[in-house]
Amino acid sequence: MNKPGTFTVHKKDGSARRGTLVTAHGEIPTPIFMPVGTQGTVKSLSPGDLVEMDAKIILGNTYHLYLRPGDDLLARHGGLHGFSSWDRPILTDSGGFQVFSLEGIRKLSEKGVEFRSYLDGSKHFFSPEKVIDIQKNIGSDIMMVLDECVGFKHDRAYTEKSLEMTTRWAKRCRDHYPVGSGDQLMFGIIQGGFHKDLRERSLEQLRDIPFEGFAIGGLSVGEPIPMMYDLVHHLAPLMPQDKPRYLMGVGTPLDLLEGVSAGVDMFDCVLPTRNARNGTLFTSQGKINIKKATHREDDSPVDPECTCYTCRNFSRAYLRHLYHARELLSYRLNTYHNVHFYLNLMREVRESIENGTFKQLKARYEAAYGK
Amino acid sequence: MNKPGTFTVHKKDGSARRGTLVTAHGEIPTPIFMPVGTQGTVKSLSPGDLVEMDAKIILGNTYHLYLRPGDDLLARHGGLHGFSSWDRPILTDSGGFQVFSLEGIRKLSEKGVEFRSYLDGSKHFFSPEKVIDIQKNIGSDIMMVLDECVGFKHDRAYTEKSLEMTTRWAKRCRDHYPVGSGDQLMFGIIQGGFHKDLRERSLEQLRDIPFEGFAIGGLSVGEPIPMMYDLVHHLAPLMPQDKPRYLMGVGTPLDLLEGVSAGVDMFDCVLPTRNARNGTLFTSQGKINIKKATHREDDSPVDPECTCYTCRNFSRAYLRHLYHARELLSYRLNTYHNVHFYLNLMREVRESIENGTFKQLKARYEAAYGK
Repeated sequence: MNKPGTFTVHKKDGSARRGTLVTAHGEIPTPIFMPVGTQGTVKSLSPGDLVEMDAKIILGNTYHLYLRPGDDLLARHGGLHGFSSWDRPILTDSGGFQVFSLEGIRKLSEKGVEFRSYLDGSKHFFSPEKVIDIQKNIGSDIMMVLDECVGFKHDRAYTEKSLEMTTRWAKRCRDHYPVGSGDQLMFGIIQGGFHKDLRERSLEQLRDIPFEGFAIGGLSVGEPIPMMYDLVHHLAPLMPQDKPRYLMGVGTPLDLLEGVSAGVDMFDCVLPTRNARNGTLFTSQGKINIKKATHREDDSPVDPECTCYTCRNFSRAYLRHLYHARELLSYRLNTYHNVHFYLNLMREVRESIENGTFKQLKARYEAAYGK
Repeated sequence: MNKPGTFTVHKKDGSARRGTLVTAHGEIPTPIFMPVGTQGTVKSLSPGDLVEMDAKIILGNTYHLYLRPGDDLLARHGGLHGFSSWDRPILTDSGGFQVFSLEGIRKLSEKGVEFRSYLDGSKHFFSPEKVIDIQKNIGSDIMMVLDECVGFKHDRAYTEKSLEMTTRWAKRCRDHYPVGSGDQLMFGIIQGGFHKDLRERSLEQLRDIPFEGFAIGGLSVGEPIPMMYDLVHHLAPLMPQDKPRYLMGVGTPLDLLEGVSAGVDMFDCVLPTRNARNGTLFTSQGKINIKKATHREDDSPVDPECTCYTCRNFSRAYLRHLYHARELLSYRLNTYHNVHFYLNLMREVRESIENGTFKQLKARYEAAYGK
């Protein structure tokens, strides 16, 4: 196997890229979707389920894992891999998004950010160096730098000041874990709000730091979808060709396809797992809500084209019953289906790039999802 | 395969019996434990899990399934087997226990019992014939007759009057679905409270009705354990030798072993599933509670002797974390372990009867569980 961090683009179809990223726990084919396992588990699914549906990499949340069970405890139990019995790649965020978006008194300074635990109100401090130390304890294959996630409503002056600090924090993160320190990769995060010139400046500053990949942060934070798409299409082509590009926290099936068309390689989002728990299921023909009375007598599976455990074994009528009876199996079977749907979508994306038919695939989903 | 209802005792060890009961969906080795799937699912487990741990038969609750999703709907979807994608045997209770133990205004008469739905307060009526019709719609392999489950605190006069009515109801159930009507079996239920002579009278009356099996109802309703054991030891040997004996709603691992030692063949209980959701796990060394701080750093599995998915993959420390984080996977992994434990216990019971070592097995568990 190649050295962790090696990224190869095998094929392009328009701007869409078919690549491979090498990590310490295995190779990741791109474009890829990473299911979110906030607290050391993708909600309701076992590692066995995730292997069965061939998830190549999952995400863990530094903020949550630091607070519970604690990164020191994880370090004593073989990191998150050993603790949760998952031997494929893991990416961890830096905790920045949670600190800046969750409730809790916080003080922000050049040194870092002070916040209160959502669990018990206790005070904590994240510096750029601290979040790297935590991620070292977690043992993730890909670490993210600490950034300030600037919201949609911040003004230009604030956004400009913030992105400069985010760059200084990014440098401190890399300095704290220089290239060659170990097998963990580190990605920088481009900020700059919805100002294209600020985004470009952020990118220019970050690309001088030897990161193994670059992410677009601060999107899908309440802005209109066309504004997000416009920014992704502007920014992705300017990002290094030879490094993976990760669009953080995005999104719907159409968002993923749009991102891929702009040249993005990696995605994560809570949408498939959270929607599943609310009864919203993704299909090749669009979304359905399993709660609805129309499914009461429906013997057909959620998606006739789907090959997942849920669709191979259960009808919409049964899933509707489980949902209304608030049965634990409801969350599980729905989540299994939705995550499988996202992984399968990305499998189709990769094949279509190889075959030069990505445009047709995108058009097919756009028709189904009513663009 | 033999005709459904065929019951063979292959071996005895003391009063403990090693047998086989034939049903329309397969043979059941006895003694057996039946996991409880109240609403068409054993809480948090998939049919695939249950097959993986080799559950031979599961239980469904007529009362719950009648109210939701409705037995008419089940009938249109291949019965509970087709609806829930479970192709092994199912036993259904008659709903009597729920009607008599759950809250809700009810009127009891010779005709049957009127009750209100726990879901929406609507009025419903169960007659002996009606609960058989419901169980026909459900399509269970083993149906139970409607009985009045008399509590621990009822006086002798009430209990005597009640058992006579239970007998008349039992006859009406059998008359409504005579032997030879189909592949579903029907078991009678012995009542009579904690009066041995009344229990004997109930049994005498029921044994004249051609049931495929007999159950002891109305135990584990708040009485002292020695009183239950005494009654089971008195009653089981008086029950027909050539029919399966089912001790309803019982119980702990020691209760099961005691029942087997008295000659009982079948058991069901919510204990392994309900306890799992509260963090109480069964092991070969006794019960543990996974919540406790003592498990915080414990890298060992729940039970080193256990071969289940949970024990093969996860530490007590991880399970404790999932429990405290209220993760859905916690309920699932805990339930998987506890149900596997009960099924494995009964596998050991069957082997020990074959080998003539049941007494030693019982003594071993009694030592672990502090009798």
